[in-house]
Amino acid sequence: MADAVLFEFLHMEMVAELCAHDPDPGPGGQNTNLSVLESMGFRVGQALGERLPREMLAFREELDVLKFLCKDLWLAAFQKQMDSLRTNHQGTYVLHDHSFPLLLPMAAGLQYLEEAPKFLAFTCGLLRGALCTLGIESVVTASVAALPGCKFQVVIRNA
Amino acid sequence: MADAVLFEFLHMEMVAELCAHDPDPGPGGQNTNLSVLESMGFRVGQALGERLPREMLAFREELDVLKFLCKDLWLAAFQKQMDSLRTNHQGTYVLHDHSFPLLLPMAAGLQYLEEAPKFLAFTCGLLRGALCTLGIESVVTASVAALPGCKFQVVIRNA
Repeated sequence: MADAVLFEFLHMEMVAELCAHDPDPGPGGQNTNLSVLESMGFRVGQALGERLPREMLAFREELDVLKFLCKDLWLAAFQKQMDSLRTNHQGTYVLHDHSFPLLLPMAAGLQYLEEAPKFLAFTCGLLRGALCTLGIESVVTASVAALPGCKFQVVIRNA
Repeated sequence: MADAVLFEFLHMEMVAELCAHDPDPGPGGQNTNLSVLESMGFRVGQALGERLPREMLAFREELDVLKFLCKDLWLAAFQKQMDSLRTNHQGTYVLHDHSFPLLLPMAAGLQYLEEAPKFLAFTCGLLRGALCTLGIESVVTASVAALPGCKFQVVIRNA
């Protein structure tokens, strides 16, 4: 049995369930589902962040915290590390995963691109929640150029 | 980072989210939430079951399948084995977990007993789904006598 997939299966069901309530949303309908997913991710991210040993993160630079998420958080959640991390050194970070596990079950056709946001909202919240617990306020968005790759953009507030 | 807890955190959020829609349900309201959770568990259990190596399960007895769930499925999902498995040898099995991980975050007071079913519905579905993939139709219910312990009763259909 593969325990790592349990989270992925549950995530998939959760997306399906939340979006099934409102299969043909009016204006703002889809956004409501995404914001519910995002806030669930946020609280899970916060809870994960609270389990970190405090001393590991004391006095760290912002960039170190981001590196930590790309390595340890990603390993814990997705059994892989983030593929790349870039920054403009002004509080904006772009985290690029060439093959994001929660997008892998989707076929790689361009026609599915519009389905991608609902598979990314939870993880945006996860990153924002973990950063919040580590004392960093942020805005996290995601974009997909070529499935199953995606980029998460983290903009630090008041950076 | 503890990756095992990711599933547990997500499960907790999912229960909270589904039950938040209907905090004071009328007749049948609570049951709707529970049946949504149960069917999410069912599909996750089915998906997990499909990942099992076929040859492991060929020609097995029903009891062997139940033992397999108590050991391997439980380990995969909860990082522990079921504490005991009893049967009347007529198609009814009682699986007893003395300290069920999804109930652990709840305080152990008797006043919380009525909250327990919503933390058990997903797992009832998980068992039923895994059994279904393995060719066994069943009805799975759960009961709590003393938190955080609980018993899952599996009744095989047409046994």
